[in-house]
Amino acid sequence: MNNAPRVTVWNEYQHEKTDPHVTKIYPNGIHSAIAQYLTRMGMIVQTATLEEPEHGLSDAVLSVTDVLVWWGHIAHEQVQEEVVGKVQQRIWSGMGLIVLHSGHFSKIFKRLMGTSCNLKWRNIGEQERIWVVDPSHPIAAGLEESFEIAAEEMYGEPFEIPTPDTLVFISSFQGGEVFRSGCCFQRGRGKIFYFRPGDQAYPTYHQPEVLRVIANAVNWAIPITGAKVQFGESTESD
Amino acid sequence: MNNAPRVTVWNEYQHEKTDPHVTKIYPNGIHSAIAQYLTRMGMIVQTATLEEPEHGLSDAVLSVTDVLVWWGHIAHEQVQEEVVGKVQQRIWSGMGLIVLHSGHFSKIFKRLMGTSCNLKWRNIGEQERIWVVDPSHPIAAGLEESFEIAAEEMYGEPFEIPTPDTLVFISSFQGGEVFRSGCCFQRGRGKIFYFRPGDQAYPTYHQPEVLRVIANAVNWAIPITGAKVQFGESTESD
Amino acid sequence: MNNAPRVTVWNEYQHEKTDPHVTKIYPNGIHSAIAQYLTRMGMIVQTATLEEPEHGLSDAVLSVTDVLVWWGHIAHEQVQEEVVGKVQQRIWSGMGLIVLHSGHFSKIFKRLMGTSCNLKWRNIGEQERIWVVDPSHPIAAGLEESFEIAAEEMYGEPFEIPTPDTLVFISSFQGGEVFRSGCCFQRGRGKIFYFRPGDQAYPTYHQPEVLRVIANAVNWAIPITGAKVQFGESTESD
Amino acid sequence: MNNAPRVTVWNEYQHEKTDPHVTKIYPNGIHSAIAQYLTRMGMIVQTATLEEPEHGLSDAVLSVTDVLVWWGHIAHEQVQEEVVGKVQQRIWSGMGLIVLHSGHFSKIFKRLMGTSCNLKWRNIGEQERIWVVDPSHPIAAGLEESFEIAAEEMYGEPFEIPTPDTLVFISSFQGGEVFRSGCCFQRGRGKIFYFRPGDQAYPTYHQPEVLRVIANAVNWAIPITGAKVQFGESTESD
Repeated sequence: MNNAPRVTVWNEYQHEKTDPHVTKIYPNGIHSAIAQYLTRMGMIVQTATLEEPEHGLSDAVLSVTDVLVWWGHIAHEQVQEEVVGKVQQRIWSGMGLIVLHSGHFSKIFKRLMGTSCNLKWRNIGEQERIWVVDPSHPIAAGLEESFEIAAEEMYGEPFEIPTPDTLVFISSFQGGEVFRSGCCFQRGRGKIFYFRPGDQAYPTYHQPEVLRVIANAVNWAIPITGAKVQFGESTESD
Repeated sequence: MNNAPRVTVWNEYQHEKTDPHVTKIYPNGIHSAIAQYLTRMGMIVQTATLEEPEHGLSDAVLSVTDVLVWWGHIAHEQVQEEVVGKVQQRIWSGMGLIVLHSGHFSKIFKRLMGTSCNLKWRNIGEQERIWVVDPSHPIAAGLEESFEIAAEEMYGEPFEIPTPDTLVFISSFQGGEVFRSGCCFQRGRGKIFYFRPGDQAYPTYHQPEVLRVIANAVNWAIPITGAKVQFGESTESD
Repeated sequence: MNNAPRVTVWNEYQHEKTDPHVTKIYPNGIHSAIAQYLTRMGMIVQTATLEEPEHGLSDAVLSVTDVLVWWGHIAHEQVQEEVVGKVQQRIWSGMGLIVLHSGHFSKIFKRLMGTSCNLKWRNIGEQERIWVVDPSHPIAAGLEESFEIAAEEMYGEPFEIPTPDTLVFISSFQGGEVFRSGCCFQRGRGKIFYFRPGDQAYPTYHQPEVLRVIANAVNWAIPITGAKVQFGESTESD
Repeated sequence: MNNAPRVTVWNEYQHEKTDPHVTKIYPNGIHSAIAQYLTRMGMIVQTATLEEPEHGLSDAVLSVTDVLVWWGHIAHEQVQEEVVGKVQQRIWSGMGLIVLHSGHFSKIFKRLMGTSCNLKWRNIGEQERIWVVDPSHPIAAGLEESFEIAAEEMYGEPFEIPTPDTLVFISSFQGGEVFRSGCCFQRGRGKIFYFRPGDQAYPTYHQPEVLRVIANAVNWAIPITGAKVQFGESTESD
């Protein structure tokens, strides 16, 4: 029997096809870079993109997905409400969700948070340093106390999200801003991890620490078998 | 200058017009019972109901509302998405929200929570005892350590909500069930309080402790002037 | 290689030697009943008691303990401060701690919480029903939505602890009281779980659901390898 | 009737008497600088220092103190355990506590947290920028989204504390480190705020934003009258 997590890496896959600078960094798309790494880590990985039917997220695909990784940026509005609704339901019943970078403005993340998910940003290729604030968290496994990304888009506070259940990372940027860059949430039975890097214009998803965090997060977010509970009318009474 | 909170009490106002048993308990609607009490407490109160244009929640009304109280049950689906969207935006910018009883399934509460808000229920008029678990919380001001409601609908765990920022009350019921019956959340700048009682078939909103909790919650949820922050692109850099 | 958790079950072991009613229920002590079960579950288990040198908690023992289970009641004051200090330090560096029932007043639990850990109690053999409020938590694995203990001491709110990081169980009692009976905390790298049952006068630690929860909690609390961090003076600067 | 908060500002008052550089910045001690400001804000303020009998914290003083402000650094060990115990008890019954800078290692703070309260530090006069992450929190009232301190000691993560109930501020430093610099906790009925600045070698407590935060925190931490609860044996049963 194979207990490897079954991961679906979703990407809107737009910049990589239209911006030569991005194509060069991610010739087969951001999803492929991430999927290749997770596959090497022994996970069972498939990818899905915006332009596929149902954005590649049919019931059949969702039902065999333990953890969904989400990258989106300029095409959030093109994601159909119906698909978003199905993903949300699947999360409530246990599927994990890893939301990357500009996915903070995705429909699915905003629906799960209930807030604007607004933040501050500046894209001039600043150095980012990501600090571990919860060193015993499994998502920080194998890391040093901090790691640097040489050039990235800046995201700064305030980040309008509900208070995370657990805060794993805080970033500082060259310009002096800070950001809660690794945040854990739970919605229903599903675990959600928001991870701040990386903008499509930088080779962030080729950096070992970033990939390691994504793999750690997948392992943390796999559904577990807890208690059997019933919702709805209860006729029984002691 | 008047610093009294400006409250709008919203009620779908259906049962009271169609079910004689309910009419007898709340001849002018649940909203009137609550509004009368809050007015006596010195608050500036107006009411709004489903059948008014824009459900009585125009921009003009929302802009002068510090705290919105919400009761709904059988007509959640009739509340227009556009109005829900405006209420949510107003909460993000600071308006408080008190959600009562079956309002756990209202569109606005589900949007703010991001979960199913599902629970267990049984409506046979059981005794409920509400216990204070955070005795120094302002919403518990003036209460004894617990109080009883003689007959109520039972709501039982699991209650599928995000972990509350603060848990103020837990209920036990005659049948042995328990429920997190007083839950604080924050979404954007807005404070939200979910309070479990009361079903329309019982005179719950005539009970002094229940009314006291609602008034306390309104006072807790009024917007405060915090820090001035900016979202969006930041051109400045140190 | 054996990855089984190494557990030390600590018991003050007083009632069982002096009260015939308790001796009959736990002829070899509460610690033995728990240790036997955990051993059957494949864990590497040892026991330790108050009257052993250093209460059985020497550096050698602590250094090979992944998770410490703690039961104490009438002899909290006899536990030496120095041993408590060593246990606390070991928890900060990752050892898990499962605190049972009247252990809420143990020195180690009070030191970790920073509060009085006070509560309400009544010991007349009431029925307790324990409800799962976080059904996807690993500590609830394998349970139904609630389970009953036929007779137990009652513990009631208010329970003066810091807000738990995660609330897994809430109990209701025959007398109508409620209690946060399964609470997760983290202190340093160490995970802590407080579990409410069981008083020495009842056969609670022979009940399958209770033992299952303890085993689940041990598995949840084992130290994990997270990030390497440094405290103290940092000479390096970017 | 006067509803002004009654504040006691406690300072170990050592550096100011022995280090000419510090004397110049705070000729009458850090406590005086803070007390003067809070008095100007309309509060009823007294001070207390290490060398007074009972460190100036007699029962009489504590019983009329709504909020205690604490600054200590090199003399933590000289604070008597008995006094610390009394302060802790008073906090449990509602007194607020504002812990400043190196007070993270004070006996009272460590007792309330239950952790090592360890952190990373470097004292070379780096620029600190303090960011508001919870803009609607009363402790952030009147602030811009961030403010700078021109030169300060650096405190960096990891900061070994329990997860704060609310995180109000995060700092970044010239060297790239980050720190959770404004943290709210509750222990018993008492509210606790840890605020990171300022080292005795810099004029931090003369800076308007820093003083404003301390005053805001005092107002936030004043005891409120909540519910009346009983601990201990309960003979009553429904």
